[in-house]
Amino acid sequence: VDVNIILFDDFETLDAFGPVEILGRIESYTLRYFSLQGGIVKSRQGLRVETVPLMKAASDGIVLLPGGQGTRMLVNEVSFLSAFTDMVQNAAYCLTVCTGSAVLAKTGLLDRRKATSNKNAFDWVKKINEKVNWQRRARWSVDGKYYTSSGVSAGMDMALGFVSDRFGREKASAIAVSIEYVWNDDQSNDLFAKTGKSDV
Amino acid sequence: VDVNIILFDDFETLDAFGPVEILGRIESYTLRYFSLQGGIVKSRQGLRVETVPLMKAASDGIVLLPGGQGTRMLVNEVSFLSAFTDMVQNAAYCLTVCTGSAVLAKTGLLDRRKATSNKNAFDWVKKINEKVNWQRRARWSVDGKYYTSSGVSAGMDMALGFVSDRFGREKASAIAVSIEYVWNDDQSNDLFAKTGKSDV
Repeated sequence: VDVNIILFDDFETLDAFGPVEILGRIESYTLRYFSLQGGIVKSRQGLRVETVPLMKAASDGIVLLPGGQGTRMLVNEVSFLSAFTDMVQNAAYCLTVCTGSAVLAKTGLLDRRKATSNKNAFDWVKKINEKVNWQRRARWSVDGKYYTSSGVSAGMDMALGFVSDRFGREKASAIAVSIEYVWNDDQSNDLFAKTGKSDV
Repeated sequence: VDVNIILFDDFETLDAFGPVEILGRIESYTLRYFSLQGGIVKSRQGLRVETVPLMKAASDGIVLLPGGQGTRMLVNEVSFLSAFTDMVQNAAYCLTVCTGSAVLAKTGLLDRRKATSNKNAFDWVKKINEKVNWQRRARWSVDGKYYTSSGVSAGMDMALGFVSDRFGREKASAIAVSIEYVWNDDQSNDLFAKTGKSDV
């Protein structure tokens, strides 16, 4: 199974490479790195990554979309959104980290579904599409084939949750131990929710 | 101040990009990515990263060396070790993650200093240089300008510890919150030490 990691300029480095570290430990998964046009993509942290054009991705893989400052542009890029919508519709699963869920919400595929996002950018994310059932308190959310996580590090907890759902809890725990990571394993325990805001 | 991240084939992705996410939030730091010869370097997780040749790095920066399977080769690469030794001697600080400390130990610069490493590879690391004061129980170790961490995720805790030592605990805590990360902030509390082995 291909894990298709979708990158774009100004993506947040750890949003992508936290989950990559975890999903890369599933023997049957192959990690592949894409962007709309292919070529070098530069992360918010100045990292330059080589990518393959999106159109070359296997259509039945698992999609992983990080967040970051670049999503503010991405939600308005019609050609990206068109290709990304096609890809996600055919994907077995779609995982987003942080503000990646804003981009997914923009496609309409999250309408009436539960989803979450970065707690610092939550109000912006909500405004992108009010038809999503946004969860202000969730380390990560699952609705059908859609997994969405809170900010940055929450992507690792979600990736372990995804592994647990597919391969069992022991496998997820073993991966956490192998990377010496303390898994925040309760998706409903949002450690960074803004307590002052109570809608949802 | 330049943070000079030294990459090599088969480096462990999160070893590098966990600390990058944290150090990238210090306004006065510039992140730069190097390898011995420059060009594309491929991580263990199939990520292809563009790098600059090591000889172009500022000599007075902060060095960050990840670990990973590639360190098994790196400890025997004379030309790398020579350039890396020069770089670290002139560096303000040197941080290693996971088996990156084996490479640093090989240079001799860690002799009689406290250091730690990945708990699964500890016996291999120790054998690289027995003159190092290896700490089997430590989330991370500090000795002079040298910071060494346990496996993979421990690099993030160490990076936050480094930020705390330089800029104060509040700054480190604020960065942890901004990336929704639960900082394991006690460097002596090794959550993944092998309890069966008691030497150090």
